[in-house]
Amino acid sequence: MTVERRVIGVVGMPGSGKGIVDDVAKELKFLVVVMGDVVREETARRGLESTPENIGKMMLQIRKEEGSAVVAKRCVAKVVESESRCVLIEGIRSLDEVKEFRRNFPSFRLLAVHSSPETRFQRLFKRARSDDSASRGIFEERDGRELRVGIGAAIALADHVIVNEGEIEQFKAEIRRFLEPFLRE
Amino acid sequence: MTVERRVIGVVGMPGSGKGIVDDVAKELKFLVVVMGDVVREETARRGLESTPENIGKMMLQIRKEEGSAVVAKRCVAKVVESESRCVLIEGIRSLDEVKEFRRNFPSFRLLAVHSSPETRFQRLFKRARSDDSASRGIFEERDGRELRVGIGAAIALADHVIVNEGEIEQFKAEIRRFLEPFLRE
Repeated sequence: MTVERRVIGVVGMPGSGKGIVDDVAKELKFLVVVMGDVVREETARRGLESTPENIGKMMLQIRKEEGSAVVAKRCVAKVVESESRCVLIEGIRSLDEVKEFRRNFPSFRLLAVHSSPETRFQRLFKRARSDDSASRGIFEERDGRELRVGIGAAIALADHVIVNEGEIEQFKAEIRRFLEPFLRE
Repeated sequence: MTVERRVIGVVGMPGSGKGIVDDVAKELKFLVVVMGDVVREETARRGLESTPENIGKMMLQIRKEEGSAVVAKRCVAKVVESESRCVLIEGIRSLDEVKEFRRNFPSFRLLAVHSSPETRFQRLFKRARSDDSASRGIFEERDGRELRVGIGAAIALADHVIVNEGEIEQFKAEIRRFLEPFLRE
């Protein structure tokens, strides 16, 4: 390839709005690679049901088996095989993954999306009340699993942060403002 | 006390602009407690010079000696002794500290300030070039020290994020917009 690829990674806690970033990127004709899909594919390949719990456990399991950057490595292969010049990789969970992407794509940029825990809880458990301790437990367990993999450090070292607390259209506009310049580079 | 205290914690990587949050909070008559001052006081008390390196090591040392929430505990004592209704605690570094504050101040809110690593590097090493590897090394070592204590998880779970990439006056205005409602509660 003579033209350098533009690769953007997305990191964010569950319920922060990463899926909306995917949607906007697809509209802009980015190739979108969802890191969770690699884990979902592996979960299915091993004959397990695709429940959030099984996928969460598989995320930890394959890291244990093949190292902390295993999912990133499989995504790099997907990107390299593709013909796309602008790529968005969604679902980064650690600095080891960030390093893997930077090593392969020198102009790699890391975008973090942030929503408060309260907002994320409301989005993920629409009918739950704040004092619904079962839902709270599931929510905090899921957050904890992500944090143990090291998602916090990746968020802390993001090149750009978009806050997703208000209207969805405003959030989408901010994502577009961030992504569009990469198309013109 | 009959009126509940309003306590806001601030978390941010080195060079993200926490000191400016302190300045704005002081202008608004908040009591400002800087967690780093507790570590600086301890460094001096043990007869060590207040170099960034010694303070960084002391931060890890007293956590090892008295537990991960030791600095938070000393700050809680300072707040409780004070007469102030609105308090800003700057320099949170882990979720253990956040838990300690929430346990003592039920309406505790966590504010994260974010700047990109490149922006923070430029601010902290004004005369350095990006390829100045000695400065880069010091910068990344300091980031690493903060991340190992767990600052990333605290940033990931912040209730509110303010991005500090542009003009300082705009950053100050956003801080004011966030802090002022607490004065009226």
